[in-house]
Amino acid sequence: MEMLLNYQTMVTDLTGLPVSNASLLDEATAAAEAMYMAFSSGNKKKNVFLVSDDVHPQTIGVVKTRAEAIDVVVKVMPHTEFDFSAGNVCGVLVQYPNTHGKIIDYGNLPQQSRSAGAMFIVASDLLALTVLRPPGEWGADCVVGSAQRFGVPLGFGGPHAAFMATTDEHKRKMPGRVIGVSRDSRGQPALRMAMQTREQHIRREKATSNICTSQALLANVAVAYSIWHGPDGLKDIATRTHGIARVLANGLVFLGYQIAHQDFFDTIQVKTRAGEANRVMEAAEQAGLNFRYIDESTVNISMDETSTAQDVDNIFKVFASVRGTNSVTAQEISNATDLSNSIAAAFRRASAFLTHPVFNLYHSETEMLRYLHKLSSKDLTLATAMIPLGSCTMKLNATSEMIPVTWPSVNSIHPFAPPRQVAGYQTLISTLERDLCEVTGFHAISFQPNAGSQGEYTGLLVIRAYHESRGDAHRNVCLIPTSAHGTNPASAALAGFRIVVVSCDSHGNIDVADLRKKIAENKENLACLMVTYPSTHGVFEESIREICSLVHEAGGQVYMDGANMNAQCGLTSPGTIGADVCHLNLHKTFCIPHGGGGPGMGPIGVAKHLAPFLPTHPVIPSSTSPQAIGPVAAAPYASASILPISWMYLKLMGGEGITKATQVAILNANYMATRLAPHYKILYRGSQGNVAHEFIIDMREIKAACGITEEDIAKRLMDFNFHAPTMSFPVAGTLMIEPTESESKEELDRFCDAMICIRQEIKEVEEGKADRLNNPLKGAPHTADMVLSDSWNRPYSREKAAYPLAYLRQNKFWPSVGRIDNVYGDRNLICTCPPISAYEQQ
Amino acid sequence: MEMLLNYQTMVTDLTGLPVSNASLLDEATAAAEAMYMAFSSGNKKKNVFLVSDDVHPQTIGVVKTRAEAIDVVVKVMPHTEFDFSAGNVCGVLVQYPNTHGKIIDYGNLPQQSRSAGAMFIVASDLLALTVLRPPGEWGADCVVGSAQRFGVPLGFGGPHAAFMATTDEHKRKMPGRVIGVSRDSRGQPALRMAMQTREQHIRREKATSNICTSQALLANVAVAYSIWHGPDGLKDIATRTHGIARVLANGLVFLGYQIAHQDFFDTIQVKTRAGEANRVMEAAEQAGLNFRYIDESTVNISMDETSTAQDVDNIFKVFASVRGTNSVTAQEISNATDLSNSIAAAFRRASAFLTHPVFNLYHSETEMLRYLHKLSSKDLTLATAMIPLGSCTMKLNATSEMIPVTWPSVNSIHPFAPPRQVAGYQTLISTLERDLCEVTGFHAISFQPNAGSQGEYTGLLVIRAYHESRGDAHRNVCLIPTSAHGTNPASAALAGFRIVVVSCDSHGNIDVADLRKKIAENKENLACLMVTYPSTHGVFEESIREICSLVHEAGGQVYMDGANMNAQCGLTSPGTIGADVCHLNLHKTFCIPHGGGGPGMGPIGVAKHLAPFLPTHPVIPSSTSPQAIGPVAAAPYASASILPISWMYLKLMGGEGITKATQVAILNANYMATRLAPHYKILYRGSQGNVAHEFIIDMREIKAACGITEEDIAKRLMDFNFHAPTMSFPVAGTLMIEPTESESKEELDRFCDAMICIRQEIKEVEEGKADRLNNPLKGAPHTADMVLSDSWNRPYSREKAAYPLAYLRQNKFWPSVGRIDNVYGDRNLICTCPPISAYEQQ
Ligand SMILES: Cc1ncc(COP(=O)(O)O)c(C=O)c1O
Ligand SMILES: Cc1ncc(COP(=O)(O)O)c(C=O)c1O
Ligand SMILES: O=C([O-])O
Repeated sequence: MEMLLNYQTMVTDLTGLPVSNASLLDEATAAAEAMYMAFSSGNKKKNVFLVSDDVHPQTIGVVKTRAEAIDVVVKVMPHTEFDFSAGNVCGVLVQYPNTHGKIIDYGNLPQQSRSAGAMFIVASDLLALTVLRPPGEWGADCVVGSAQRFGVPLGFGGPHAAFMATTDEHKRKMPGRVIGVSRDSRGQPALRMAMQTREQHIRREKATSNICTSQALLANVAVAYSIWHGPDGLKDIATRTHGIARVLANGLVFLGYQIAHQDFFDTIQVKTRAGEANRVMEAAEQAGLNFRYIDESTVNISMDETSTAQDVDNIFKVFASVRGTNSVTAQEISNATDLSNSIAAAFRRASAFLTHPVFNLYHSETEMLRYLHKLSSKDLTLATAMIPLGSCTMKLNATSEMIPVTWPSVNSIHPFAPPRQVAGYQTLISTLERDLCEVTGFHAISFQPNAGSQGEYTGLLVIRAYHESRGDAHRNVCLIPTSAHGTNPASAALAGFRIVVVSCDSHGNIDVADLRKKIAENKENLACLMVTYPSTHGVFEESIREICSLVHEAGGQVYMDGANMNAQCGLTSPGTIGADVCHLNLHKTFCIPHGGGGPGMGPIGVAKHLAPFLPTHPVIPSSTSPQAIGPVAAAPYASASILPISWMYLKLMGGEGITKATQVAILNANYMATRLAPHYKILYRGSQGNVAHEFIIDMREIKAACGITEEDIAKRLMDFNFHAPTMSFPVAGTLMIEPTESESKEELDRFCDAMICIRQEIKEVEEGKADRLNNPLKGAPHTADMVLSDSWNRPYSREKAAYPLAYLRQNKFWPSVGRIDNVYGDRNLICTCPPISAYEQQ
Repeated sequence: MEMLLNYQTMVTDLTGLPVSNASLLDEATAAAEAMYMAFSSGNKKKNVFLVSDDVHPQTIGVVKTRAEAIDVVVKVMPHTEFDFSAGNVCGVLVQYPNTHGKIIDYGNLPQQSRSAGAMFIVASDLLALTVLRPPGEWGADCVVGSAQRFGVPLGFGGPHAAFMATTDEHKRKMPGRVIGVSRDSRGQPALRMAMQTREQHIRREKATSNICTSQALLANVAVAYSIWHGPDGLKDIATRTHGIARVLANGLVFLGYQIAHQDFFDTIQVKTRAGEANRVMEAAEQAGLNFRYIDESTVNISMDETSTAQDVDNIFKVFASVRGTNSVTAQEISNATDLSNSIAAAFRRASAFLTHPVFNLYHSETEMLRYLHKLSSKDLTLATAMIPLGSCTMKLNATSEMIPVTWPSVNSIHPFAPPRQVAGYQTLISTLERDLCEVTGFHAISFQPNAGSQGEYTGLLVIRAYHESRGDAHRNVCLIPTSAHGTNPASAALAGFRIVVVSCDSHGNIDVADLRKKIAENKENLACLMVTYPSTHGVFEESIREICSLVHEAGGQVYMDGANMNAQCGLTSPGTIGADVCHLNLHKTFCIPHGGGGPGMGPIGVAKHLAPFLPTHPVIPSSTSPQAIGPVAAAPYASASILPISWMYLKLMGGEGITKATQVAILNANYMATRLAPHYKILYRGSQGNVAHEFIIDMREIKAACGITEEDIAKRLMDFNFHAPTMSFPVAGTLMIEPTESESKEELDRFCDAMICIRQEIKEVEEGKADRLNNPLKGAPHTADMVLSDSWNRPYSREKAAYPLAYLRQNKFWPSVGRIDNVYGDRNLICTCPPISAYEQQ
């Protein structure tokens, strides 16, 4: 969390806006999220969104897909033609520098926009902003972009962290997670997730952002890059990058070509004679270079920190060869180039940035290593103990599966590289598609959705497109059971559906009677049902086939939430139960590590009749079907470079291995439920008394009896070296436990022992032997400085606080903060790094 | 240390002998060490050592080199011809299975040998011993070998861990480190280095083993392999390996060849028609296979756990093609082969091994990861804080420098691969030689010595050979100043020199008057001086050139101990000061990580006149000079696969970078000395008042005044998250501090602050404000369970114990054991894993 707070600080500093979130999925979806912010800022009354035609095509594509579903009209045109006079514009999107590399002075457009009540959104580039005046200083309400070039490989499209920063005015509408600074029970600064007002966790049916898994790990990488280089280092990199682009431009002019714009940062647009651009592209590819083809007389070329004089020489040779002239060298041009005023004064950044000590202390490998090591030692990870988060499937991420991600052949490929250059990826993706089709019983897979939430949204758009293709455009009702994950209704809302809630019975199953009723009530307009199987209640719903049939009979489609695939693989499948589409969280069942909140992948599988509607992409078509929906992510295969992880998992396990894994996952959950049942109430079970791969413990009676809550237990578990289970999802006042197949019996027992020991402590409160408010549960977690404090004055002993069970004496993971004060955090919202002095006052 | 204890347990279990050390450098030097044990067991009176002629040639070579220097006569012959009748045999070395793969029943040879008062030494293979009767069960006194195949890559020769196990009778003669179990101040089991009776640390001038840096990291890898596979897994691997070798043998018989021995484990000897073996070798190399050529009608072939049916098929094809017959497949042969009694009953292992829980608990990647993570969290490493160990140069080991070690192209090459197959290594080694020659001012480098100690020994042998070549065989006196590292006299003893000690003056410099005197006294027989520069006292000895001249004038050579090269690179050099030979600890100045006691590399540089004497190798000649001394390591380039680390360091830094590093290392030491001088006595300085790259703090006055010792300070530093400096070397009652260039001013200050805070605590004792025996220094280190104990009853507070300075509240590294009880450990020598119950009694 400290790194994410650093990330937020970096983004606010560089964009010149005061509030940032902790990452989004990619630049294009970040722009689409900003569009939605603008739409809802205007109370959904203004439905026109203006987009400059010099924004990246994939960004325009994703914004359009997203807008269409919610009846926002996207108008793409030169920004000089933007017209606010009709009073129906909710927002504006421009790019700085634009897709052709040009740095544009938007004059008073931001002010015009603001006067018209429209949000002014700028897509930008963090490296450019180290030397260019940041949009926050010239009137932007929101800045989005990708942090990829801050140390993250291209990865054939991802994963990368996108960023979003906005003003105080708009901050409560911002999607994604925001890390905030609060204080803990000792009065010390402590970090927490703050401000998720738009998130599905908070107000389910009202949620307007479905972002759950995002790009936390990549945000860490990007900010680590800034910490390492510091403000001066970044400026040097930017200056060098710009310099080499300027040398390139001057050299091409020398060779007789024209450069379209003189105000650029790293990307130049080269004008050729008509038709010549094609010959340039051919010669380039032969020389091992990829340029961006714009039209028969235009190509764009970008430089970055890895570009060398040799690269530039090679480019010169390509252009010289096309005209049959002698080439020139970067050295020769450089000698003749004055770079001192190369960026026009009007655009030059004057303000300081990254002034916080964290960006100025760790510039040697030794210091950086120690800083990262110190942070990592504060995280309780799978390397220490099981993480029993229900619905998260925190299983082994085998080291061997991670290795290919580090290979340049996997991670150094541009997402828009010509398909003929990426035969390896094509094979990998098609093999993975085949394997996942076998696992799911589906016909085709789209790898474009970048997370489970995006899979839901995409699947629903596919269902919409299917109904529309049959003349059923009016089918817009999406049934969602009360047990659904919060992303389900949020995705349905984003996809433009009307949500109708279906209730559950006392066993945690969908109430089939209520389902029949809701279907009947909405028969005409029924679009689909979203259902999780096994249910989020941790049971294999026995009427699942009946449920699917009922929906189908009424002309609806079934969307299955695949988060619980770890209870299905090899034993059953979405295809078997009758679903039409489902997403697969590759970061759950298929072994991509969670990364503390991403990256992930949420490909969707579909039955044959839905395959034609799977998304395409404006730059690299990922579908050949004329019925394909528009893009839902910046890259055709989203975070492609982590697909080898799932590919290897499937290849290493084989069909038998995967089936065994599912069996053991279910066995483990049942073992734990059986051990814990005498001590806690297991909320739901199937008709045979079994649970699926996870189960829910109900704490509500305990709370009623003695005031101890599920949160107290979650915090107390930290004193036992355990991460908490999932709290209050899907039922408030409960804990949901998912062991996965990766845990040994010893570890399951250790966790059960901890839970049973905690139950004893609760009993002491129930029986009045321990104080209701001052006891090891309410006092948890206990940090080392608390328990060894000379002024310890609690009614229970220090040893009871820290070593409730004997194994902890040999192997103790110390919590680094005490109980967080959420009220204080809500009242004093701080989302950037606090000054060091904040830590000193004790 | 826990892993090294596990390693010792593994070695004792597999060899069937009760005591093991924590690794040696390679199999050949381990055998030479065993020879020395035998020689000294016989009180150096019996001087014949019998070696079977079917021991590996490199082992025989190294044993011979080692024996020659100390006038032991090595007789190589078939073991059936061993003759003890002259009563002059100190020991016997045989191999099981032998170098040709044959498993030999040595009958009553061990008993015969013992009756004759000779040690019976067996070179063996750990994997074979999982299925073969271990030598400890049929009479061996000592077993040596390589643990390479337990998970360690070939690495073109190393690094690998060698092992040595012996009987209770011989254990006090065993070289290398042994980890022992003692107990700490809480009465809990605690590990420590035990039993270094032969080591240079204990009785310098009497030391008979020079092993210092060894193969700790590789011993960790090897035992991790055993922990992962467990006894059953290892047996499966061995059985499969044997099985595939048997299939290979049967197939070759089917193809018309003969197999020399039927009792084999993994290596078979194939008999061909006369001259045919050469054609087999050619065909094999064309098929991408390397066999071992024995003679024109014999080749040996080994199988291992990576061998596949495909490999065997390919081998069959090679042999079939030589005879122009049809080949056969592994599958076909396998179908016709009964493997059940493939190893003769007489050889089959019946006894259990690896029964300790540590070898039976961690068989999933999750469990293994957690076990390793738990152990690693107990180690205070460079990732947490500076390690100010004087004379160790604990500098940054950059991640980028480590990467090539993981490449198969670097680590998967056999040390005896035909030179034409290893052009890459040849280039790397010759470039590194050139660079190191430039750094040292020398003419040539030998990369055969596997550690600094081996470099010393080899350098001295080279000097010996040089004198002998000039008819000066009588020159056998080696002058060594009192300040020398303990390995110096030990190496001199092993090289057969007579040691004459030269005293130092009150400034820590060699007493030139005494040197003149000793030279005069030994003028006739002077062989050399061993000198460390800058001295182990942390000063640049100003008379160093004079010293070297005096020695030269008397016909002696100068051996410079290169451990302190980090104070020389770019500023001066051994060549400049007039040395003739020196070793370079690549694991100090040249960035190979120390690995907790190895691996390392100790190449030696020599002046032109010594170059012809650098070592060669019996299998792959590493020198073409007829004057070359015999091999000093099993592989021609020792631990070749870690050479890329030093290569990259030199390439990344360049001449300027290396000079700057030296300057900063010296500056850092002087900064610290200046900050600490008002608080502690700096023992030695140069005439300008400066220290070199390290300095010594004298604690003797403090101890006299108040009883606080250097050990108390070392232990108290652990409470400040710091590793202790070097204790009592080279002067008893002192601490030697070396910061290196890798530390920032912040870190130097943090360490100085801790030392100054400790000085205040000492003052409290001096002034009687704190108890002399019960104070934070004597009580250190303080574990978490101590300071939060409900029964804390010390006269100082818990917070003073744990948080003497404020930064510790944010970032505390908790010591995992209290003060070790050395006396208890010495009295109760336990060198294998204690039962789990030992940890439970509290
Ligand atoms: C049941 C369920 N559905 C959907 C999701 C959303 O998936 P993602 O986090 O990949 O967006 C989750 C995430 O945990 C989930 O548990
Ligand atoms: C001064 C000095 N000489 C020699 C050595 C021995 O080197 P190695 O440990 O590589 O055998 C050391 C090791 O620390 C040393 O400090
Ligand atoms: O939001 C969840 O990760 O369940």
